[in-house]
Amino acid sequence: MQARRKVYVEGSRPDIRVPFAEVELAGENPPVRLYDTSGPGSDPEVGLPALRGPWIAERGDVAPVRGAGTPLAGVDGRRPTQLAYARAGIVTPEMEFVAVRENLPAELVRDEIARGRAVLPLNVNHPEVEPAIIGSRFLVKVNANIGTSAVTSSVAEEVEKLTWATRWGADTVMDLSTGKRIHETREAIVRNSPVPIGTVPIYQALEKVGGDPVKLSWEVFRETVIEQAEQGVDYMTVHAGVLMRYVPLAVERVTGIVSRGGSIMAAWCLAHHQENFLYTNFRELCEILARYDVTFSLGDGLRPGSIADANDEAQFAELRTLGELTKIAWEYDVQVMIEGPGHVPMHKIKENVDLQQELCQEAPFYTLGPLTTDIAPAYDHITSAIGAAMIGMFGTAMLCYVTPKEHLGLPDRDDVKAGVIAYKIAAHAADLAKGHPGAQDWDNALSKARFEFRWEDQFNLSLDPETARAYHDATLPAEPAKTAHFCSMCGPKFCSMKITQELKEYAARGMQDKSTEFVESGGKVYLPLA
Amino acid sequence: MQARRKVYVEGSRPDIRVPFAEVELAGENPPVRLYDTSGPGSDPEVGLPALRGPWIAERGDVAPVRGAGTPLAGVDGRRPTQLAYARAGIVTPEMEFVAVRENLPAELVRDEIARGRAVLPLNVNHPEVEPAIIGSRFLVKVNANIGTSAVTSSVAEEVEKLTWATRWGADTVMDLSTGKRIHETREAIVRNSPVPIGTVPIYQALEKVGGDPVKLSWEVFRETVIEQAEQGVDYMTVHAGVLMRYVPLAVERVTGIVSRGGSIMAAWCLAHHQENFLYTNFRELCEILARYDVTFSLGDGLRPGSIADANDEAQFAELRTLGELTKIAWEYDVQVMIEGPGHVPMHKIKENVDLQQELCQEAPFYTLGPLTTDIAPAYDHITSAIGAAMIGMFGTAMLCYVTPKEHLGLPDRDDVKAGVIAYKIAAHAADLAKGHPGAQDWDNALSKARFEFRWEDQFNLSLDPETARAYHDATLPAEPAKTAHFCSMCGPKFCSMKITQELKEYAARGMQDKSTEFVESGGKVYLPLA
Repeated sequence: MQARRKVYVEGSRPDIRVPFAEVELAGENPPVRLYDTSGPGSDPEVGLPALRGPWIAERGDVAPVRGAGTPLAGVDGRRPTQLAYARAGIVTPEMEFVAVRENLPAELVRDEIARGRAVLPLNVNHPEVEPAIIGSRFLVKVNANIGTSAVTSSVAEEVEKLTWATRWGADTVMDLSTGKRIHETREAIVRNSPVPIGTVPIYQALEKVGGDPVKLSWEVFRETVIEQAEQGVDYMTVHAGVLMRYVPLAVERVTGIVSRGGSIMAAWCLAHHQENFLYTNFRELCEILARYDVTFSLGDGLRPGSIADANDEAQFAELRTLGELTKIAWEYDVQVMIEGPGHVPMHKIKENVDLQQELCQEAPFYTLGPLTTDIAPAYDHITSAIGAAMIGMFGTAMLCYVTPKEHLGLPDRDDVKAGVIAYKIAAHAADLAKGHPGAQDWDNALSKARFEFRWEDQFNLSLDPETARAYHDATLPAEPAKTAHFCSMCGPKFCSMKITQELKEYAARGMQDKSTEFVESGGKVYLPLA
Repeated sequence: MQARRKVYVEGSRPDIRVPFAEVELAGENPPVRLYDTSGPGSDPEVGLPALRGPWIAERGDVAPVRGAGTPLAGVDGRRPTQLAYARAGIVTPEMEFVAVRENLPAELVRDEIARGRAVLPLNVNHPEVEPAIIGSRFLVKVNANIGTSAVTSSVAEEVEKLTWATRWGADTVMDLSTGKRIHETREAIVRNSPVPIGTVPIYQALEKVGGDPVKLSWEVFRETVIEQAEQGVDYMTVHAGVLMRYVPLAVERVTGIVSRGGSIMAAWCLAHHQENFLYTNFRELCEILARYDVTFSLGDGLRPGSIADANDEAQFAELRTLGELTKIAWEYDVQVMIEGPGHVPMHKIKENVDLQQELCQEAPFYTLGPLTTDIAPAYDHITSAIGAAMIGMFGTAMLCYVTPKEHLGLPDRDDVKAGVIAYKIAAHAADLAKGHPGAQDWDNALSKARFEFRWEDQFNLSLDPETARAYHDATLPAEPAKTAHFCSMCGPKFCSMKITQELKEYAARGMQDKSTEFVESGGKVYLPLA
């Protein structure tokens, strides 16, 4: 990526410096600036610089919870959330940062957050993060899941996957660790992450009770949420919509309950014959999240896990409950997004977005895929990129990636990259379809480079410059081929773009009665391999 | 694929034997039969058996053109086309073959062919082919392009790619060879192909005139078409819609004319200041194709090659002309399909199908992708699988694959597989969205196997069993893991499907006042690694 360099655009004050990846192009072509999630780069032993440190401090609404050097939380009943500020009409530096990043007015950012249609997941204890906005009026975002499991992988590997995921464009990362050392892994991830970090606290709570869902309790969960909020987790998946009465609707499905959190809560409800403690204690949970500005990601514990189960009563019953919970969270100035499926055939995708927008008052939708068929394990980054692109077009704000290893094993480094790339494609295709201002500039710059045989520019503008270059070089490796006015696909005689360029020159000279002239010069409608 | 075996379903006569891949499943689960394009297997030196030999012979409408042992063609002004028979109310063995293959009534097949809404590309000189039907009422088909180029690759490699492509599910294969030995390559491909073969005759015609488009003529083209028809090519792309007056519309685009055939014909038209000879000689071309039952694939020479150029006047002007040519071809009982784009953002895809169906009287649409963004060279199998799935859902009958090497180089074996798999996913996702009868049975069988932890069944039902198995084994290689009721993703404690199964058993015993019992037995909501 030699021709890509990081540049910063300054906002209204010198400490608002928004990163972009600038691609230099040949000749008269202006450079292209791309949204950049890679962060400033960190030494894992040290962590990233605290970009937001001054912004958090100067608002004076937080203080260390247990004296100097301990984590921050809201003081005096104040809610240090971006939603509270947006509602108060205040444009925070974080809002200005994303306005510059998205090339949109800061007032639009503030207004979308205020009405709950966008979220800025930014824990007061995660000053290292570069703010990113999630909402249907903004660029479609991509989340990458990483995390250790009981069976495999290490902390260092997961930090490496985090860095790798943001390098390829992940806008947020969820740490889904379930094995030993959950706390330690998360600490390493948060301190090194330039993007918002999400978690599913029930996983750690379950570890604390020895892995038996029946032994879970509100107390253990609350303690876990506070522990994670103090570390700086920016958003948390909470399966508060899995109500006892919905469970029978789900167990008779082809694939039952496929959400881990959903199945854990369902097991708890049935064992205790009591309502989900996340639901019954939801207001207290809101008070806790408000103190740290942790954003809710209301989990879809009953999402369909197969084509057969899509859009069924269990799924939509839970969605209605998530809509009610959204209103409650907003009472506490807590930001909310809503998680969505899963496995959905193409003709049933739009209904998901329409219902979610209606039932959840346009809170941002955050979906896993959806996979549009069940038949291709090992290729579910593709089965789901199809669904993700479509659901993004219909208004979903963030797409949770799926890797080739989905259903089969834990993703390694290559799988993380494959998942992120497939989802960056889906997200950008959705941005184009939504007519997002400026989205098509990237396509146009790349296509113009392609048409003009500026191979290096084409590579450098690619989502994955290295692979594009490597694929080209696999058949025509020599350096002169990078300036050739054809490629190995058609060879010199059949290059349609070369021929069109000649036609264009011909047309420019006037097409009337020029046929003789064209025939004379037209022996050269292709450029022989020199 | 040990648990997959080829089975044959017999039609009304013993020589109608339709292949399926039957997947044996564990326990009480009935076997699943999948559409099978892999053919009977051939020795490249010998070629495939002549399945259709007796069917062609018994109709008595063809004879060797130059005495015994020479290629066949219609005799006495008869048109030995499937369209002619369908219109005459006759169900041919070929029609019955595809009716069995698609599990639909033979009369529906005949009727769809008769009204031009489906094609059965079956040259009388290609008896080796297993008939496959292309039409919006049938399973969405996938085409794979192969072929030598001036710069690289050999005949043996291309035959190997053909076999490889049909193994993974290609329904037709186009031989786009452009280098030396075009005739020899094509002969090897046709003799070894169990699927219909398509070509673009203008490529060979251009080779015959030394590579200079200006030197092309109707005579050279006609000679080439006859040469290829006599070899057994089942369908031919003909760029007869690139009219002289459309060329100026295209040259000012961001990416001009990206179809090789389109650019060649545009260059010819402008050089001679004459109308496209494929258009002016179209009726004679119909007479030729009718003699061999070669199907027209009316080429979209002006398809958009970038997001910026999608759905523009050049593209749709040509489409109107293709609609006129369709009616003319039908006068001669020649089957027709219509080629489509290309590069199209998601929100402009449906308009392509709607216009094509209207302007071309519902003749089958056959599209290249479309790619839904230009920014991801090296991943255009994915950018285009998104568009392909959507355009399939809207009614496109066949999807021409795009490989990861698109725009960069010639596909190798791995690229061919990646392209075919991505497109089988798109096609099947479209079949599901269209509610094709029985399409979802495959998904249901796989999801049920997944839910019941029948790992081997899940692998064997996969589009790519080998890769699914390899990915699973990468983290949990031991044989016992294949019967484990969890996998490496979540480990035993977090397996939502395991928990649901227990909930299901619990629910079956009645949910009222059973909580104590569940708690007693519920210490086992997970199965420890035994």
